[in-house]
Amino acid sequence: METTEPEANVTRIMLAVNESSIKGYPHASISSRGAFEWTIQKIVRSNTSGFKLLFLHVQAPHEDGFEDMDSIYAFPEDFKTMKHRDQTRGLHLLEYFVTRCHEIGVACEAWIKEGDPKEVICREAKRMQPDLLVVGSRGLGPFQRVIAGTVSEFCVKHAECPVVSIKRRPGETPQDPVDD
Amino acid sequence: METTEPEANVTRIMLAVNESSIKGYPHASISSRGAFEWTIQKIVRSNTSGFKLLFLHVQAPHEDGFEDMDSIYAFPEDFKTMKHRDQTRGLHLLEYFVTRCHEIGVACEAWIKEGDPKEVICREAKRMQPDLLVVGSRGLGPFQRVIAGTVSEFCVKHAECPVVSIKRRPGETPQDPVDD
Repeated sequence: METTEPEANVTRIMLAVNESSIKGYPHASISSRGAFEWTIQKIVRSNTSGFKLLFLHVQAPHEDGFEDMDSIYAFPEDFKTMKHRDQTRGLHLLEYFVTRCHEIGVACEAWIKEGDPKEVICREAKRMQPDLLVVGSRGLGPFQRVIAGTVSEFCVKHAECPVVSIKRRPGETPQDPVDD
Repeated sequence: METTEPEANVTRIMLAVNESSIKGYPHASISSRGAFEWTIQKIVRSNTSGFKLLFLHVQAPHEDGFEDMDSIYAFPEDFKTMKHRDQTRGLHLLEYFVTRCHEIGVACEAWIKEGDPKEVICREAKRMQPDLLVVGSRGLGPFQRVIAGTVSEFCVKHAECPVVSIKRRPGETPQDPVDD
């Protein structure tokens, strides 16, 4: 990272990233990667020393409840195992983005929080005061939105900093558009 | 404009700009200037050859209806005079931004359209396919929003490209926050 400008003078872009919900695909969701690539290609461009990317991953409690339906929890350790697995996945997710930033040569930091993603993203945006918050969006229709909830819409409305929502490209939409 | 990169490879940012509604202040609104300064300082930065700014000004028919309340229209020419005045103002507005871009050294183009601002902005965004649409917002409360309408909210919802809405800073808000 060749930081030629003092940190106080870089543009700080916060990216909210999440895992793919498609089974057997345990890394960055299509919309998170889309939001990241858009930020690099369209905003950072060749000016890598002018920007710093802040990656936030929010883990919702019991995020993979479906997978755990058949599991039996008999001891406190069983929950610890589950929690440990969640954390490991979250670290892999952030590792992907941090590695990409190092390859590109743009400064970054990354962290994990627990809670309701939309609320934690807005709270962390308030705390970190980025110049821009970039969130990926699946670009769902109105009916699918009601079912799947829309973190991006909530952030656009409630975050105190400028927010841009990057829609997943139609060609990248999985069979079930709610997946990502 | 030292364009060192071919145009196809620049990031094209469309800015919807409007006039100040404060009487005796016939140029760029506070929120338009805020959106422009944010784009230059936080996104373009020193990378002036990597970006092109597209300024759209939409003139709503009878935009200054209040001022014209006491006017008498007897001949078709009276309307032409009004229309001519609107166009002159619109040109002054665009001249301000184009001059600023030339000073900074970033490529730009600017044009005027007539119609309902929110609809024309979305239509022009569809036609021009910018990488990002930046709109200024007065940051009104819910009650004021209902009265004043919100072009920015409409664009965030309906434009087909990524949109960022830049709120006017509290310190720059005129006595009546609906003014700008």
